[in-house]
Amino acid sequence: MKQGERTWAFPNPPVIIATGTVVGPDEGEGPLSADFDLVHPDMELQQPSWEKAERALLEQATDIAISNAKLKKDDIEYFVGGDLLNQIISSTFAARTIGAPYIGVFGACSTSMETLALASLMVASGAGDKVLAGTSSHNCTVEKQFRYPTEYGSQKPPTAQYTVTGAGAAVVARTGDGPKVTAATIGKVVDLGIKDPFNMGAAMAPAAVDTIQAHLQDTGREPGYYDLIVTGDLAGVGHPIARELLLRNGVPLQQTTFNDCGLMIYDVAKQKVQAGGSGCACSAVVTYGHLLRRMKKGELKRILVAATGALLSPLSFQQGESIPCIAHAVSIEA
Amino acid sequence: MKQGERTWAFPNPPVIIATGTVVGPDEGEGPLSADFDLVHPDMELQQPSWEKAERALLEQATDIAISNAKLKKDDIEYFVGGDLLNQIISSTFAARTIGAPYIGVFGACSTSMETLALASLMVASGAGDKVLAGTSSHNCTVEKQFRYPTEYGSQKPPTAQYTVTGAGAAVVARTGDGPKVTAATIGKVVDLGIKDPFNMGAAMAPAAVDTIQAHLQDTGREPGYYDLIVTGDLAGVGHPIARELLLRNGVPLQQTTFNDCGLMIYDVAKQKVQAGGSGCACSAVVTYGHLLRRMKKGELKRILVAATGALLSPLSFQQGESIPCIAHAVSIEA
Repeated sequence: MKQGERTWAFPNPPVIIATGTVVGPDEGEGPLSADFDLVHPDMELQQPSWEKAERALLEQATDIAISNAKLKKDDIEYFVGGDLLNQIISSTFAARTIGAPYIGVFGACSTSMETLALASLMVASGAGDKVLAGTSSHNCTVEKQFRYPTEYGSQKPPTAQYTVTGAGAAVVARTGDGPKVTAATIGKVVDLGIKDPFNMGAAMAPAAVDTIQAHLQDTGREPGYYDLIVTGDLAGVGHPIARELLLRNGVPLQQTTFNDCGLMIYDVAKQKVQAGGSGCACSAVVTYGHLLRRMKKGELKRILVAATGALLSPLSFQQGESIPCIAHAVSIEA
Repeated sequence: MKQGERTWAFPNPPVIIATGTVVGPDEGEGPLSADFDLVHPDMELQQPSWEKAERALLEQATDIAISNAKLKKDDIEYFVGGDLLNQIISSTFAARTIGAPYIGVFGACSTSMETLALASLMVASGAGDKVLAGTSSHNCTVEKQFRYPTEYGSQKPPTAQYTVTGAGAAVVARTGDGPKVTAATIGKVVDLGIKDPFNMGAAMAPAAVDTIQAHLQDTGREPGYYDLIVTGDLAGVGHPIARELLLRNGVPLQQTTFNDCGLMIYDVAKQKVQAGGSGCACSAVVTYGHLLRRMKKGELKRILVAATGALLSPLSFQQGESIPCIAHAVSIEA
């Protein structure tokens, strides 16, 4: 199963038989709105707290994925979930609702592909079939937990990013119709010493570069193998840095399209999202909603999603630590 | 690889080729002191914060495990780690030091067996060899994060538990000398509505029962198959509840020894630990230090470790939620 240094290549590739994506109002005003299964008109979802709203997002996304797969909750053999909240409570409470055996993970915004990679490994190894991977984020829960009281409405520098409100889930199975997960490359912690939590794109860019290069090296592929290589949430500051670093390292990026989910989900020039989108849900809903829909239409045949995560905590920041970053990449082929 | 509802049975069982265990002063005063690789005389480890001390514990435990395996850091193909701190920063910063591809997980105190189960799956499936699993906890970081400012020295009811200061790590490999991981049973979230964070043993007991019964059912084993079935950190209140529930459900527990790491690590009657030990490190250091040493001596041949986790966050508690719990069980055989 292992190929090269840190890639899992799946000889019998697991299939993404269904997905579910749910987003909030800002994402609904973005250019990908029509690709999501459910768009909420507000951030509250009639819940008494933002945290409960985030949990509801994840419950809805997993529900939709299960229903799109024509399955029932009981058919789900394992749920691999994670999110940004302390003790990943959104995923845990969603797991309580789903009722399946649960593997909780944390990879900050790289959780989207960390869960998909692990679900795929479980299916490919015969440890399970019909494994659900899912993640969520909510602009107000993250603002409150990582930055300032949300109501304070603190101003942000233009390098900051806007956390996506949403959730994305995928059902991975041994057989079925749908795009296949052919490989996953596991990230290392990369930390070049950036300490500014309002510039996470720049902090995460080297991690994305590290994982993309490792993936290409491990698989012996050229960037041109993919119709699209997409990073998770580097946005307007980080993505050009990643591009420059890859080109400088001799990666022939011109063979492919290189984009970023954080740049795709919003109309960055028009919406008030600073440098672009971020959050676990960013790469999850763009991949499971938009990109897989494009694959279905035949517009894309092979994509590589390198989800990026900034693994800091408010406390590690307060204690003067730099921001450790990671990226996990998953190769999806029609 | 899958057996029954939610057990991974490994036909070519991965081997725990080495472990590393590091603890603090209270654990050093407990009855298992001689079984740990390193006992610190204080909680600070000459670090400027408790969080950095916790990270140092995990770095030391992983270092010792790698060195006991006669390997170098570079030989470690993956590190699967997690801990109790927000955004699992102890594991992430340790991963930065180790330098291996990193899978961060969160299962509260069940993280010890969650990481071992995943590391074993990776090795058994050929996704990797020499996979490091590790976790840590620190009494003062947990007190500060989950309860009150540590310096406040808040009084605890006798149902409360005392978080173990320590870290445990294991190197899992395809071949080599050592006990084998023959199976792992993944837990479901079990929540019977207990809301008292000072009685987590009682909250977690039903999760332990659920997973132990699932394991026995999935594998077709009787409790007597094991010389010892041990729960993670149910301690003085939770463990008798688990015993009673298992007996009431008709599990012939009298065939085996049924114990709890939280009761073993301290002299509960003499040390000021309320109902006993808890924390990710509790089951990790008792398993990797004490139990594997007893297996080496031939005193134990087959053990089942059901690590328990209370997946609450301070916020979910404040918002009136009950405590979602989980247990992951790993079967280790000489």
